[in-house]
Amino acid sequence: MIYLDNSATTKPHKEVLASFHKVAETYFANPSSIHHFGSEAERLLQQSKKQAAQLLAVKPEEVIFTSGGTEGNNMAIKGIALQHQNRGKHIITSSIEHPSVLEACRSLESLGFEVTYLPVNEFGEVSPSDVENAIKDDTILISIMSVNNEIGTIQPIKEIGKIASSHHKLFFHVDHVQGLGKHQLDIKGHGIDLCTFSGHKIHGLKGTGALYVKNGTTLFPLMHGGSQEASLRSGTENLAGIVSFVKALRLILEAEKTNRDKMTEMNQFLREKINEMSGVVLNSPEEAALHILNFSVPGLKPEVIIHSLGKKEIFISTKSACSSKDADESAVLAACGMEHDRTVSALRVSLSYENSIDEVRTFCEQLEQTINELHEVMG
Amino acid sequence: MIYLDNSATTKPHKEVLASFHKVAETYFANPSSIHHFGSEAERLLQQSKKQAAQLLAVKPEEVIFTSGGTEGNNMAIKGIALQHQNRGKHIITSSIEHPSVLEACRSLESLGFEVTYLPVNEFGEVSPSDVENAIKDDTILISIMSVNNEIGTIQPIKEIGKIASSHHKLFFHVDHVQGLGKHQLDIKGHGIDLCTFSGHKIHGLKGTGALYVKNGTTLFPLMHGGSQEASLRSGTENLAGIVSFVKALRLILEAEKTNRDKMTEMNQFLREKINEMSGVVLNSPEEAALHILNFSVPGLKPEVIIHSLGKKEIFISTKSACSSKDADESAVLAACGMEHDRTVSALRVSLSYENSIDEVRTFCEQLEQTINELHEVMG
Ligand SMILES: Cc1ncc(COP(=O)(O)O)c(C=O)c1O
Ligand SMILES: Cc1ncc(COP(=O)(O)O)c(C=O)c1O
Repeated sequence: MIYLDNSATTKPHKEVLASFHKVAETYFANPSSIHHFGSEAERLLQQSKKQAAQLLAVKPEEVIFTSGGTEGNNMAIKGIALQHQNRGKHIITSSIEHPSVLEACRSLESLGFEVTYLPVNEFGEVSPSDVENAIKDDTILISIMSVNNEIGTIQPIKEIGKIASSHHKLFFHVDHVQGLGKHQLDIKGHGIDLCTFSGHKIHGLKGTGALYVKNGTTLFPLMHGGSQEASLRSGTENLAGIVSFVKALRLILEAEKTNRDKMTEMNQFLREKINEMSGVVLNSPEEAALHILNFSVPGLKPEVIIHSLGKKEIFISTKSACSSKDADESAVLAACGMEHDRTVSALRVSLSYENSIDEVRTFCEQLEQTINELHEVMG
Repeated sequence: MIYLDNSATTKPHKEVLASFHKVAETYFANPSSIHHFGSEAERLLQQSKKQAAQLLAVKPEEVIFTSGGTEGNNMAIKGIALQHQNRGKHIITSSIEHPSVLEACRSLESLGFEVTYLPVNEFGEVSPSDVENAIKDDTILISIMSVNNEIGTIQPIKEIGKIASSHHKLFFHVDHVQGLGKHQLDIKGHGIDLCTFSGHKIHGLKGTGALYVKNGTTLFPLMHGGSQEASLRSGTENLAGIVSFVKALRLILEAEKTNRDKMTEMNQFLREKINEMSGVVLNSPEEAALHILNFSVPGLKPEVIIHSLGKKEIFISTKSACSSKDADESAVLAACGMEHDRTVSALRVSLSYENSIDEVRTFCEQLEQTINELHEVMG
């Protein structure tokens, strides 16, 4: 199998699964139980939080473990909105955020909030001056992703963070689900108040993740109850999931250091080969994150290509699900101003540090062959 | 180790962990991915949903997988409240619900909702006529648990469901986290619109659970995004967790059939022995669920007893965490009208079908010895 759909989800690392198994079996007590078996679990939880904080260069109490990226994004956006609505009801985001941000924002519109969806340029970039101009007296939140999940665009988080920081009344949330381990983000340096992470995108387990919540930031929790996670996220802690997430976090940050060159090489190889293929056009901008490469094959239905490659056990994807009203069109590519034949024929290759240049080479060969075959059938 | 804290959490079954491991390793694709590896995951997801529905005697589309009981309760309560607030803003619950219900309700008060917290009698029972009398024109939700987590009281869900059903404008939610596999609940027969389940209380994994949402019931989701789980609970599905939850569900329902007699025997043994101990008083009513036995040792601090038993590797608990303003007092026992010396000295034994009568016997011997030793030290 050649798995090149790593932005949809990744294969869990063996060590990550082993950690989960060990903790679920051995430290199954409820960390809230006051007997010493419970205290052991509580200690492990605190150790995990400390380690996650070190890895993310934030404080332990600023790490809130969640069930994934969608929970983190909803918790940040709805949490700020509901908690601070007396201050204002205006939110700024972009038109190419992940559905978990866009739909969370739309749901708030139904509760009387006002949302500005900023446009992007041809490379999918949000303009910091657009952000600045959109800020009003009643703006309480700016939510912008670090790396776009469809085309890999890297947003100017540092610049937006500077603008956000100069307005004391508002909070700045960054969806870093696609960026974690692939694109460095200086959480403390960039004026970020909330930052979302997901485990299953970094060879961790589904159902795991974290939200960074800067000290002093108050939120209306999605889940009230037993006051776990500093009362920001109640519910019996998924300790095995938490330990496994922190392990995945450590491993991806190590891989980012040691395997960056391989990633660059795979990306360059892909770009060159795809540029050479006739009838294929690259959609990811030059400066995009290295692990995501989006391209279109105008005139061919992307699901037909995926199906053909799938028969050869090569897995890539189309645009992410549910992000467009026109079921066939990529809303992200449309927002970049691309023509219809391109927005309806997009494919995404997403790499992991676990992939090899050989896999990428085989994929390119098979892609070219598939496209030729399909053109022949049609011609 | 003699683990008698099964209402706090349970040890995952080996088979449950094995299922999780297998699925996480083999079917790691994102069910939303359209390649055939993704379709395989999607198929497994649908199979799991079908099996869960059969086990719960509901329809597959009525089962929404969640991260646990706290999420389920918050999703039900806030989901109904936010979705149906135009109809009315009044909610009815009891004063001895789990914090994930009570705090969810309190959080809604801060958003302008009105909540009636019904009293309970000396046995912890909610009176159906109190429920009926509390219903107003603007009541949109009744939330009552099936089995209380501290003292095991079984609420008259059937009778309350009848009343709820006769008022078409309101929804009826049941927190069945403690009841699942120990106390039968006829979801379809009792007029229930929403029902919460948690995996880790039934030898499943933490971070897993489900919410029953009756067909036609609309909710404001906690998590918006990619429209997973019929758009009621977005986020990449934790397929391994889901499969493991359904396995735990099957096993607990089987155990309920085959090991019911053993549970009755353990319960009767405990009741007899504890009744015989001097200075110890039973708090759980006669008619309580069999797996929960609450008692007080007035004059002794419960944490001291827990600590002593813990040294002998016997684990029981006090009142659940965070359910009382007076940190030492059980709010549940106080609501039952018990004296202060009893509400501050409560202990809870909670059984699993995995426990043996031998373990229960050893516990009773050690409890008696511990109490005697402590009285000597103090005397
Ligand atoms: C940018 C981005 N944000 C959020 C999410 C949601 O994360 P999760 O799948 O963990 O809910 C995803 C992935 O689906 C994503 O790519
Ligand atoms: C009655 C009841 N409801 C809800 C919950 C919350 O479930 P979870 O721990 O899965 O969040 C619990 C357990 O803590 C409980 O006993």
